[in-house]
Amino acid sequence: MNNKQESPLVGIIMGSDSDLPVMKAAADILQFFEVPFELTVVSAHRTPQRMLEYAESAASRGLKLIIAGAGGAAHLPGMVAAITPLPVIGVPIKSSNSIDGWDSILSILQMPNGVPVATVALNAAKNAGILAAKILGTSDENLRQKIVTYMENLKKEVNEKVEHLQHSGYPNRFDVK
Amino acid sequence: MNNKQESPLVGIIMGSDSDLPVMKAAADILQFFEVPFELTVVSAHRTPQRMLEYAESAASRGLKLIIAGAGGAAHLPGMVAAITPLPVIGVPIKSSNSIDGWDSILSILQMPNGVPVATVALNAAKNAGILAAKILGTSDENLRQKIVTYMENLKKEVNEKVEHLQHSGYPNRFDVK
Amino acid sequence: MNNKQESPLVGIIMGSDSDLPVMKAAADILQFFEVPFELTVVSAHRTPQRMLEYAESAASRGLKLIIAGAGGAAHLPGMVAAITPLPVIGVPIKSSNSIDGWDSILSILQMPNGVPVATVALNAAKNAGILAAKILGTSDENLRQKIVTYMENLKKEVNEKVEHLQHSGYPNRFDVK
Amino acid sequence: MNNKQESPLVGIIMGSDSDLPVMKAAADILQFFEVPFELTVVSAHRTPQRMLEYAESAASRGLKLIIAGAGGAAHLPGMVAAITPLPVIGVPIKSSNSIDGWDSILSILQMPNGVPVATVALNAAKNAGILAAKILGTSDENLRQKIVTYMENLKKEVNEKVEHLQHSGYPNRFDVK
Amino acid sequence: MNNKQESPLVGIIMGSDSDLPVMKAAADILQFFEVPFELTVVSAHRTPQRMLEYAESAASRGLKLIIAGAGGAAHLPGMVAAITPLPVIGVPIKSSNSIDGWDSILSILQMPNGVPVATVALNAAKNAGILAAKILGTSDENLRQKIVTYMENLKKEVNEKVEHLQHSGYPNRFDVK
Amino acid sequence: MNNKQESPLVGIIMGSDSDLPVMKAAADILQFFEVPFELTVVSAHRTPQRMLEYAESAASRGLKLIIAGAGGAAHLPGMVAAITPLPVIGVPIKSSNSIDGWDSILSILQMPNGVPVATVALNAAKNAGILAAKILGTSDENLRQKIVTYMENLKKEVNEKVEHLQHSGYPNRFDVK
Amino acid sequence: MNNKQESPLVGIIMGSDSDLPVMKAAADILQFFEVPFELTVVSAHRTPQRMLEYAESAASRGLKLIIAGAGGAAHLPGMVAAITPLPVIGVPIKSSNSIDGWDSILSILQMPNGVPVATVALNAAKNAGILAAKILGTSDENLRQKIVTYMENLKKEVNEKVEHLQHSGYPNRFDVK
Amino acid sequence: MNNKQESPLVGIIMGSDSDLPVMKAAADILQFFEVPFELTVVSAHRTPQRMLEYAESAASRGLKLIIAGAGGAAHLPGMVAAITPLPVIGVPIKSSNSIDGWDSILSILQMPNGVPVATVALNAAKNAGILAAKILGTSDENLRQKIVTYMENLKKEVNEKVEHLQHSGYPNRFDVK
Repeated sequence: MNNKQESPLVGIIMGSDSDLPVMKAAADILQFFEVPFELTVVSAHRTPQRMLEYAESAASRGLKLIIAGAGGAAHLPGMVAAITPLPVIGVPIKSSNSIDGWDSILSILQMPNGVPVATVALNAAKNAGILAAKILGTSDENLRQKIVTYMENLKKEVNEKVEHLQHSGYPNRFDVK
Repeated sequence: MNNKQESPLVGIIMGSDSDLPVMKAAADILQFFEVPFELTVVSAHRTPQRMLEYAESAASRGLKLIIAGAGGAAHLPGMVAAITPLPVIGVPIKSSNSIDGWDSILSILQMPNGVPVATVALNAAKNAGILAAKILGTSDENLRQKIVTYMENLKKEVNEKVEHLQHSGYPNRFDVK
Repeated sequence: MNNKQESPLVGIIMGSDSDLPVMKAAADILQFFEVPFELTVVSAHRTPQRMLEYAESAASRGLKLIIAGAGGAAHLPGMVAAITPLPVIGVPIKSSNSIDGWDSILSILQMPNGVPVATVALNAAKNAGILAAKILGTSDENLRQKIVTYMENLKKEVNEKVEHLQHSGYPNRFDVK
Repeated sequence: MNNKQESPLVGIIMGSDSDLPVMKAAADILQFFEVPFELTVVSAHRTPQRMLEYAESAASRGLKLIIAGAGGAAHLPGMVAAITPLPVIGVPIKSSNSIDGWDSILSILQMPNGVPVATVALNAAKNAGILAAKILGTSDENLRQKIVTYMENLKKEVNEKVEHLQHSGYPNRFDVK
Repeated sequence: MNNKQESPLVGIIMGSDSDLPVMKAAADILQFFEVPFELTVVSAHRTPQRMLEYAESAASRGLKLIIAGAGGAAHLPGMVAAITPLPVIGVPIKSSNSIDGWDSILSILQMPNGVPVATVALNAAKNAGILAAKILGTSDENLRQKIVTYMENLKKEVNEKVEHLQHSGYPNRFDVK
Repeated sequence: MNNKQESPLVGIIMGSDSDLPVMKAAADILQFFEVPFELTVVSAHRTPQRMLEYAESAASRGLKLIIAGAGGAAHLPGMVAAITPLPVIGVPIKSSNSIDGWDSILSILQMPNGVPVATVALNAAKNAGILAAKILGTSDENLRQKIVTYMENLKKEVNEKVEHLQHSGYPNRFDVK
Repeated sequence: MNNKQESPLVGIIMGSDSDLPVMKAAADILQFFEVPFELTVVSAHRTPQRMLEYAESAASRGLKLIIAGAGGAAHLPGMVAAITPLPVIGVPIKSSNSIDGWDSILSILQMPNGVPVATVALNAAKNAGILAAKILGTSDENLRQKIVTYMENLKKEVNEKVEHLQHSGYPNRFDVK
Repeated sequence: MNNKQESPLVGIIMGSDSDLPVMKAAADILQFFEVPFELTVVSAHRTPQRMLEYAESAASRGLKLIIAGAGGAAHLPGMVAAITPLPVIGVPIKSSNSIDGWDSILSILQMPNGVPVATVALNAAKNAGILAAKILGTSDENLRQKIVTYMENLKKEVNEKVEHLQHSGYPNRFDVK
């Protein structure tokens, strides 16, 4: 896959480059599913005009959906969802000085009627990427098949761990404490 | 629109018929967007086998996505998302004996890596329906246009209220208290 | 006072006209302090472009500060603060389906570095108005004197209640329960 | 005791092998009480079919009860309890990205009417094992006697510490700070 | 069934008779399962000696387990569990002046190592009764069979509601709002 | 008892006369214990100078301790404790616009080292009065004896309810639901 | 002072010797105030009988008040308060596996009517000791004077820091960041 | 700028010198904006009289506003706001033994009607300084222009990061995980 040459279907944006270590997981899994994406920083609070333009042009530039991650009073996902007709996936990020992530979760999740954001778990950028693939898979049979395979592999990994546990004769390793 | 004759694209399910007054809003808005849907009760805890079958057959029956609402220890959205490759939208419901809705929100939102649920706000079944339309709009230009129009209408309603406030000469009506 | 003829110094905005019963208290107290204001509805999520224009033009139209109230995922105060150099006072509103007001408080309060919002207590629009008067009083000796008088009156009201309690011979009214 | 040769009475399951460091304490204490058990990984979200089969066959395979540990949106204990007539003990686990454990606690504890899970404290796998022994002790006088002895030993340990404190002449060791 | 004549197997206790409207559901469901029980008020804080005696004599009087409900700083379940070798099921009760039930949940659930309480959901006395039946069913095949039937009936009730919804032609009843 | 003639030992103060319906219970129980008290309104925020004087003169006027109730950002108990060497009992009050009482609890309880407040439960003015009596009872054998009797009566009330429950043949009144 | 020779007035107890590093601060400050005390471990859950005896004999042994510290589902302070007519000060301890201390705070603070516990801040054993001194100071003029002096010293320490800050020319040390 | 020679417009105060590492950021940014300030320690709880005097004299000494930071039961900002007619900005500080900062936030934010505190995010002393500059900018065109420039620079920094991300060919650096 060459993300540079295919037109991106998913826009991954984040409020700050300090969110990159978390949001990187969305890019990784989209690359795994061979979904072309773009990734950039768009700050609702420091670059509101840029955010407006990004959201307004997203559909016409060919994006199919947007993944937006932000921490604290996290307005980026909701504001983008207020502007674009594309579905927006929100990733709450537990930033420093966050109050255990509650601020980020609630300011992304609790959107008013009319303007939904598809919120995933705290820091769950990987799940945001998988959800994006599932959404694009609603009209791309090839992609949906990859998701089926991915889910099969999750199962296989568990089964391998089950076997590994059994061979290790686990219970007998314990001493009473 | 005749939901009976068109094959449904969205499955709206809920853990209990007591969730119907909340979940009805998802059906209403899908009907408004002319998205064919089905609506039924599927309980993760009282009909686990039925849930499994519903989730397993959803894609092959032609559904494109599932909206699942549940309250308390709300396992339905996450369990369905664990089985189907379709995107699942979760609606946390503030049921009686819920702890202010926190239980429902957290047990829908905080899914582990690999199994995302697109969570919307507490009781926000209407937003679940709009999100479903946005998702289906990623491959249906006609539907996306309806969403654009819907968002325009949200704006118009606000503008009408703005005008109404101005004509009422609002600030002058107050007496100091 | 005639709010129509004096140029407003304070803009009171709210995300929805359903916030008016709460936000009215800000208008009332500003009228009491004879601070000219304007009041309107500006929705971050339903009228993002209008919000942008409102915030961009606020300073040049002569406003000195903005009071913004919103509920749920309350983005209006923070977004306006991101655009205007004026100070913004945020009023968290406990709307229906709010999670006890936590969502609104956290999404207004927890702004990132660079973009402060002066947050007041839940539903405390009256305090927002008083804070606005205190802020304008930093350069208006007449207004500051009114605040001093207002604070004196708070004290007098308490003292009257103290006297009233004493004359009622309060403790003796009780029977043991 | 030989866990391999006796038929297990307790099934210890967990959603992921990353839960093993916590859940190990349940195995340890059951071994101490000489209650035969089995231990494996069963993921509600990655191996839903395996979970169904595990829960459905548990009673017929001779298990008397199940201890299930999970973190985050912890569906395993509740889903297993929905399928088996055996009592299920749930262990909320504070996993990484958990919101201080609240997500796990609430999604295990707040089960709807009809489908109870016996929830223990956060990470309290040891208590899950003791509770299992107490439950099996309702029909096993020998086991109940071991529990009585165990509780006596808890008391003795405290008493030893009391004596140790006294002999150390504790209070006199302090300097004022 | 005649609870007076059969020796009770389950002791249902509560901290105050104001808890009776909630705890009654435990008695109801045990009666349904034909499990003989006794029900009384035992206050950890107002009758500590009585609590001690109740807990100390429970096993020798033939009880197999105890269901204890309490609100606020709910010490009854944990204190009883500290004294008796019987399993104790704790029911957190949302009393007046409770802080949304959090106080009761946490003071029952978060027991230290060595002294487990099998905690059920807030106000979930019915589930406490079902859990008691499941526990006694570990050594009473007849009772376990009743539980299997009970779980079947939960399923049937859902299925009837499913059919009822279908016959009502649900989706077509909506008007767009 | 004549509270007017005996010099008061306890000062009951509250931030607002709207707290009186809650704080009245402290006065009632002190009257029951025949502890002379005074009761008035002292607002930390509206009458800070009065608060300072009240706290500074409390010991010299013969008060032995102070009970202070307040809601929201409840500074009265802590501020009084910062000024007087007398013990201060704080009563968190769940006022309107309080966030479920959390604000009041935390701003009374979480005092820094050096300045303790003896905090009681939310709205628990009665317990504040009992605690005051227990404190004064440390040097008043007669009062301590009254407390012993009071605690005996709590026990008797429970025992009467126990008997009443038994005579009503409680368990047999239920129908299965 | 010789704690061994004078009869103790304060009993400092804790649920576990792991609480000693926190509770030590109560002993330190009592020693500073020359208030004789005893210190030991009393576990509500592991030594309930010992707890009962400790609480029952406390008054007759000459103790004037009890300081009880505990973590998690912290029943010790409330249970002791239920038995003794002495005032009980509760210290919530943030133990491992505590949920940020909420469990300990709520299970100590939220006592029912009739049985108060004087709760101090999380881990605030020092404040528990100061509160004990303030309580004993209600009938010991010498001790009250020591508290006055102690509070004066708190003030002096702050004033010294104020001076130190001024001499360091604080503001000029900064570089803009 | 020479803070020593210009008369300070902003008073930065904090409850303890341990708050200095956090509160320093307010001083830094005011220095950047060339707003003269003073900085000192004023403890509501250890130096209540000093606090009273500081607040009472603030306006007459020429201060225009006060920034007050405090942790735990944080009474300083609210108490100062109760005394001075100047606007007060409150900075909640997450001190040790704080309960995740909730105590500090709520005891600063939830002020009663009549006495507002302009609360900023947890530990957000930098934002307090920016808010102070915005407030003074309401009557100082030169300062407002600096704020406009500062906000422009925030935008530029984001844009540089955007460019840097693009040149680094970000998406291609990932390996699938």
